[in-house]
Amino acid sequence: MKIRQVTVTPVAFHDPALLNAVGVHEPYALRSIIQLHCDDGVVGLGESYGDDAFLALLEAAADAITGLDVFHLGLIEQAVSRAVGGGAFADSHGLTGGSSSSKTVLSVFSAFEVACLDAQGKSVGRPVADLLGGAVRDRVPFSAYLFYKWAAHPGGAEDEWGAALDPDGIVRQARRMIDRYGFGAVKLKGGVFPPEEEIEAIRALRAAFPDLPLRLDPNAAWTVPTSLKVATELDGVLEYLEDPTAGIEGMAEVARQAPMPLATNMCVVAPEHLAPGLKQQAIGVLLSDHHYWGGLRHSQQVSALCATFGVGLSMHSNSHLGISLAAMVQLAAATQHLSYACDTHWPWKREDEDVIVPGALTFREGAVALPSGPGLGVELDQDALDRLHRLYLDCGQRRRDDTAYMQRLHPGYQPHTPGW
Amino acid sequence: MKIRQVTVTPVAFHDPALLNAVGVHEPYALRSIIQLHCDDGVVGLGESYGDDAFLALLEAAADAITGLDVFHLGLIEQAVSRAVGGGAFADSHGLTGGSSSSKTVLSVFSAFEVACLDAQGKSVGRPVADLLGGAVRDRVPFSAYLFYKWAAHPGGAEDEWGAALDPDGIVRQARRMIDRYGFGAVKLKGGVFPPEEEIEAIRALRAAFPDLPLRLDPNAAWTVPTSLKVATELDGVLEYLEDPTAGIEGMAEVARQAPMPLATNMCVVAPEHLAPGLKQQAIGVLLSDHHYWGGLRHSQQVSALCATFGVGLSMHSNSHLGISLAAMVQLAAATQHLSYACDTHWPWKREDEDVIVPGALTFREGAVALPSGPGLGVELDQDALDRLHRLYLDCGQRRRDDTAYMQRLHPGYQPHTPGW
Repeated sequence: MKIRQVTVTPVAFHDPALLNAVGVHEPYALRSIIQLHCDDGVVGLGESYGDDAFLALLEAAADAITGLDVFHLGLIEQAVSRAVGGGAFADSHGLTGGSSSSKTVLSVFSAFEVACLDAQGKSVGRPVADLLGGAVRDRVPFSAYLFYKWAAHPGGAEDEWGAALDPDGIVRQARRMIDRYGFGAVKLKGGVFPPEEEIEAIRALRAAFPDLPLRLDPNAAWTVPTSLKVATELDGVLEYLEDPTAGIEGMAEVARQAPMPLATNMCVVAPEHLAPGLKQQAIGVLLSDHHYWGGLRHSQQVSALCATFGVGLSMHSNSHLGISLAAMVQLAAATQHLSYACDTHWPWKREDEDVIVPGALTFREGAVALPSGPGLGVELDQDALDRLHRLYLDCGQRRRDDTAYMQRLHPGYQPHTPGW
Repeated sequence: MKIRQVTVTPVAFHDPALLNAVGVHEPYALRSIIQLHCDDGVVGLGESYGDDAFLALLEAAADAITGLDVFHLGLIEQAVSRAVGGGAFADSHGLTGGSSSSKTVLSVFSAFEVACLDAQGKSVGRPVADLLGGAVRDRVPFSAYLFYKWAAHPGGAEDEWGAALDPDGIVRQARRMIDRYGFGAVKLKGGVFPPEEEIEAIRALRAAFPDLPLRLDPNAAWTVPTSLKVATELDGVLEYLEDPTAGIEGMAEVARQAPMPLATNMCVVAPEHLAPGLKQQAIGVLLSDHHYWGGLRHSQQVSALCATFGVGLSMHSNSHLGISLAAMVQLAAATQHLSYACDTHWPWKREDEDVIVPGALTFREGAVALPSGPGLGVELDQDALDRLHRLYLDCGQRRRDDTAYMQRLHPGYQPHTPGW
């Protein structure tokens, strides 16, 4: 079942003015939609980053894998490595840790691996989860993902969520999000305001939702002493503290004294970080992400490694559309060692903006049921794809750079990494 | 595609009088042949150990997995764990390290996992390798596996290999085996004679085969000082030294000074050994074995873990038939990180004794080509299975106990672990 043709379509969708340690989300999130047209008529779907530098890598790899069999993932990975290996793609926001040549190859390969698995599943009439060892859970729990945010992008209309710039605003946002999706765990993206204010927001969430597990993620905006101070103050309140400070050494120093596990999607983000990260006991939870860990099968291998070393597993998320959500659900359903509800930016996406036919993926009680269809279980909506591609063409944005955007709005702004 | 019925058939086949550190192989090797009869008529094949205690575990697990879908490997593993978990199966020869509850569950699950993958492959018309990410090599290299041996079991007829009890005999055996199979690497099972004699045998092999990588495996028969003495004397001669001494601590002590990598299938044989083994840098090469590492998918996860930690990967073998060889070939073909030619006892099996239709698996230039058929690529020969089952019934042997057999022949014999 050979790949006859690969199309990579950049798309854009509206993204609210979500604040983080390095600035503010730009008005559009960019993604790439991969279609693998196979010689028997099956089309496999994938989704990944949409920054222009990444699109160029996808295009180079697309040529390299044309003609290969969608079941030959090892050979496809080798072809991708030959096509794009050696260089390192660095995103412009830096929120998923450093870049490296291995992470770049795994990121590019991932987009195609998911599409191959979708094609495999469609070809054999099985959900992708069945190609990953089969589902061990039929519903995948996700966490609410709270952000400090502005009510609108400057010059734009206020979004439905409104502003959230203090504890009250965060609790209001949480309540709205939980009412709508039923989430049973809550994460706050921090690193935006001085730690005392974010501690207060967490305390307000604890008061409002006494039974829900809480997480705080300042994206390495704090020094080691500040991290330890926050960890001590939030002892018994957080289920885990995510990336309080930068680097494996810093995280290890915090981990030695923090009362809760530390999680990361910044200091351990490529295979070469696993040995030092584990050796230094820097992390208690890995936030895995198939988009840069090399796809669904490699992510399962990373999960197995975490299980072997007694490290918990959760799932990281960037702004994404339905193909990525389907891949996350298939992967999580089939992954034995998954310790926490997964992250997702899904609530921040407008309901009418996606590239898939609606209905296959629904949040109920904070979880998404494994779709019943073959492959990823979702279907491409060609008109919707065309619309989001046009939005990409029209919006003019070609990468995500939260800092540059913030600096355009607020000259003199500097990222808070480490700010406190 | 549900499992309608599971049959577990114990079989026996002739095994030569192969010597090792704990005694001598008994006259028969015992195996279990698993058939998963699925509701659409597909039959999946598996093969594993045949000791009576293990057969009882297979039977218990067989009941537990009946009715499950062959694609739902995670649920099947959970069912096996519930059925046999808690206890630990200990083989009677001790040559694959200690027993544990986790190793037992993974061993029992493995037999069924392979059969499920065979059924999956047959169902979708793809080789098992394609369900494991696809082949990255189309031929799997194996190593010659030399043994000190008697010409015959006491009271039996001399086998075609004759005796090998000194360096000349070992070189003669190697030449015959290499002439027949074309092996490009050579392993000598040691721990039988004082280390000086085995060093001489390795030197004789080096003189006779100047270009072939050589390995020596005394099955932990040596103390740490003896291991270091042998390692020093064979510096530049061995590609790796396998299990010179017992336990992770002892191996780590040897590894710190030995000039060549140490390999193991004795001190790291279950998931719980990986962290301490890696932390103490006890091993440079893991001899993986899908029969006790939980099947083909888990073995790939172990391989990925080894790649992450810079540990080489080779493959361990017990006496086995064609279904296991097919599984080893499918796994090795699809495993990116495989650093050495794999072990196999294949040459010690009579050519006319197997349970599969001949022809699918052929050694050429020391390697076996990936079979072209779906699933494992081999077909059960029901008459042959009946014959080997009858041999099992008639032979009276119900477990493998090299030491007890040797003691029946030579009262007062004690295993050489550690003997020198």
